[in-house]
Amino acid sequence: MKVLISLKTGIYYYYKSKGDFHTKEGYLKEEDLLSEKKVLLSNTNRKFLCFDSNEYDKRLKIKRGAQIVTPKDIGYIISRTGITKNSIVLEAGTGSGAFGINLAQLVKKVKSYEINESHYEIAKKNIENFALKNISLKLGDVCDYIEKEKGIDLLFLDMPEPQIVIEKKLTAVKSGAFIVAYLPSISQIINLLKTTKDKEDLYVEEISEVNVREWKVNDRIARPQFRKEIDHTAFLCFIRKI
Amino acid sequence: MKVLISLKTGIYYYYKSKGDFHTKEGYLKEEDLLSEKKVLLSNTNRKFLCFDSNEYDKRLKIKRGAQIVTPKDIGYIISRTGITKNSIVLEAGTGSGAFGINLAQLVKKVKSYEINESHYEIAKKNIENFALKNISLKLGDVCDYIEKEKGIDLLFLDMPEPQIVIEKKLTAVKSGAFIVAYLPSISQIINLLKTTKDKEDLYVEEISEVNVREWKVNDRIARPQFRKEIDHTAFLCFIRKI
Amino acid sequence: MKVLISLKTGIYYYYKSKGDFHTKEGYLKEEDLLSEKKVLLSNTNRKFLCFDSNEYDKRLKIKRGAQIVTPKDIGYIISRTGITKNSIVLEAGTGSGAFGINLAQLVKKVKSYEINESHYEIAKKNIENFALKNISLKLGDVCDYIEKEKGIDLLFLDMPEPQIVIEKKLTAVKSGAFIVAYLPSISQIINLLKTTKDKEDLYVEEISEVNVREWKVNDRIARPQFRKEIDHTAFLCFIRKI
Amino acid sequence: MKVLISLKTGIYYYYKSKGDFHTKEGYLKEEDLLSEKKVLLSNTNRKFLCFDSNEYDKRLKIKRGAQIVTPKDIGYIISRTGITKNSIVLEAGTGSGAFGINLAQLVKKVKSYEINESHYEIAKKNIENFALKNISLKLGDVCDYIEKEKGIDLLFLDMPEPQIVIEKKLTAVKSGAFIVAYLPSISQIINLLKTTKDKEDLYVEEISEVNVREWKVNDRIARPQFRKEIDHTAFLCFIRKI
Repeated sequence: MKVLISLKTGIYYYYKSKGDFHTKEGYLKEEDLLSEKKVLLSNTNRKFLCFDSNEYDKRLKIKRGAQIVTPKDIGYIISRTGITKNSIVLEAGTGSGAFGINLAQLVKKVKSYEINESHYEIAKKNIENFALKNISLKLGDVCDYIEKEKGIDLLFLDMPEPQIVIEKKLTAVKSGAFIVAYLPSISQIINLLKTTKDKEDLYVEEISEVNVREWKVNDRIARPQFRKEIDHTAFLCFIRKI
Repeated sequence: MKVLISLKTGIYYYYKSKGDFHTKEGYLKEEDLLSEKKVLLSNTNRKFLCFDSNEYDKRLKIKRGAQIVTPKDIGYIISRTGITKNSIVLEAGTGSGAFGINLAQLVKKVKSYEINESHYEIAKKNIENFALKNISLKLGDVCDYIEKEKGIDLLFLDMPEPQIVIEKKLTAVKSGAFIVAYLPSISQIINLLKTTKDKEDLYVEEISEVNVREWKVNDRIARPQFRKEIDHTAFLCFIRKI
Repeated sequence: MKVLISLKTGIYYYYKSKGDFHTKEGYLKEEDLLSEKKVLLSNTNRKFLCFDSNEYDKRLKIKRGAQIVTPKDIGYIISRTGITKNSIVLEAGTGSGAFGINLAQLVKKVKSYEINESHYEIAKKNIENFALKNISLKLGDVCDYIEKEKGIDLLFLDMPEPQIVIEKKLTAVKSGAFIVAYLPSISQIINLLKTTKDKEDLYVEEISEVNVREWKVNDRIARPQFRKEIDHTAFLCFIRKI
Repeated sequence: MKVLISLKTGIYYYYKSKGDFHTKEGYLKEEDLLSEKKVLLSNTNRKFLCFDSNEYDKRLKIKRGAQIVTPKDIGYIISRTGITKNSIVLEAGTGSGAFGINLAQLVKKVKSYEINESHYEIAKKNIENFALKNISLKLGDVCDYIEKEKGIDLLFLDMPEPQIVIEKKLTAVKSGAFIVAYLPSISQIINLLKTTKDKEDLYVEEISEVNVREWKVNDRIARPQFRKEIDHTAFLCFIRKI
């Protein structure tokens, strides 16, 4: 896949297949697109930057069924939980697969459970597109499996009521490893903590939210972007397995 | 290493060596510390949670010479630049090594350059403590080496004037890969952009800052932590190599 | 004026004149609108809350020519500069009049200058609608008048290059009073400070930005509003007159 | 009162009485302090800016018993509720008097109730120091008086359980006027809303928090202040009286 950026409008385009590429700003020829040229001219004489996509671009193109875990949240989970390329991650609530795919590109193994069949089907296709061999996807309730697992370095709970998992025996999760719940509403966090406080092998270490603020900077201007303040997504609850 | 949390004060302690462990809150016996017990009692009858440290804890203990790149920023750089365990990362400005160590735990190879000898010595020891084989540290000016490198998936510039690197030929950085500058002041971003705008093979894709806000939540309270609003660290400039 | 809120959609309507009131959600009868009833039924059987407008509602209806100073910024300027109902405020850059009108409703006297004729005409009408006797509006360059004024408790500069005023003799501004510049870009603040640093009778006391974050709270949900994070408006520079 | 700023350290001093003024940075002579000089030299040859205090400085010196409502919150309440110099404000929970004093300097009349005797005594003295004739302070429970009041343009509830007031008949509050609750925890907001939802004459219009972020800007630097990110204070709940 190649990425094209129109220098006139700043719009990003993604060129996947063979053939000429048509945009509202004109079309680009296949021979240019497949060449080594970095700046292409459309038939309308507009300049487009052209470069190889990287994994970030590919992840942006993931088909969305469920709400997606955003890069700002995925990144903080990665750095805050201490996972490495030797880690095994168990995810409950695959959603569209964005979290699982990103994690699988970094860690040893991702096991993901999804209870909703239509989400499962979408996630399955998204994962196939990335040709990752270290992510296993299962249709089913994580509660039926969690007590049989072992050696988990990160348990990620992307579901409305993570307390149903928290109530199980979590011997699968290593001592010192994290369980992270991802919840849009602080009310859900309050409910979750009613369960954790009775579990002697869990310690709530941090509850936080991550915000990324984009700026516009050039010769004359330096200010936060107008109308681009990034939305609230979710509160993150970092629970340590004792 | 084991981590101890006092249930009375919430203070974290790190038990590295053999022997009893003395704290202001009393001492813990070696035989308890080396046992499988999860809750330990001090001689003063205080309860301490005890569990295996993970990589996050170990990174917290990195000795600091230069200012450290924080987890909130490291995480967003990882997720925003599309790096994977197959990536090669080049870092200019090792500092204390926190960024390089974290990245080396996730990617294929980290090459790090540090021009300041005292930073270099501290970083060297920190890296040794992690026994990582895929991070190479060099004392010297990255400008002398950057044009000879190749296949870089992420070039991280943690230095006051990254434009001196930007002015070089950046053929080492792959098409579609990112160059990320980490700068405390927006004035430094303004200065950097004076250089990037003349480089046809670079495209400034995003300038942003990452903020993590911690919450206090229990049965009766749910509010942002008082006096814990995380400080400004730096602006991140994501530049795409065309 | 009366305010109507549809309980179905949450949309606000403003009923100014006589006659029935037509909305996309049905119409309301004049006899109901002019009665003391607090909950009205439309012909489509929708419930509308009905109550007297207050000055906040009226200010929301100010006709906009120029960009408006927002309540979050106006409020902080009021509380941060120590003005009272005995204060005299001089404003350079009337814009649509929102700031001047709000201030005139609280302080003794507002004198406002606007150099742009079309802004002046819009502001003039807006001010007339509020029937305020303590706000004077003048078409002209504040630089021609500032040295003749006196007894100013707050000088508000809502203009792209406030340094042209700062360069004048500011004897009109009382000792201890504030000059506040309102600037969208931090680059403008940087430029302004190049001028203030040479003025012995000025001291830059605070540069800040005000953000209001709205929440959605009900029985089950408590979270920041999605897609309502309030935009960046401007940086405020509070300069003390020595 | 005069304000002194040390140009060396940036520390603010407040000169209230007669006599020389001693600081850790040296002392200043009475004759200089009472002169028209704007820049004074201490015996240690340090330069101090010297200017008349304004009402903001005086409010900063209010003696604190209870937690104080901050300028950022007071300002937004003023601009968001549409009050003017003709308004009557009723406050429940005087605290140290900071809110009441600031409001009384802008509106027609402030009536303030405080149930805690030690807070009442502190507030009483603070109010006396401002020589305001339009603020009345009463020791007692607002619930005993609220149904006898009338013509209120703003009801400000600075108390842990404002629902005890909300449950009363609020005929004292004008149609279209606001009731504002000031609550540190979002849990308190959730509890409050359980009461408001059963009251047909109340409409929750906005729940928000106000944040002010300070910047450091000079020739070379432009960045948010380190370690000065302003803390969370409270959530504001704006309720409209129908």
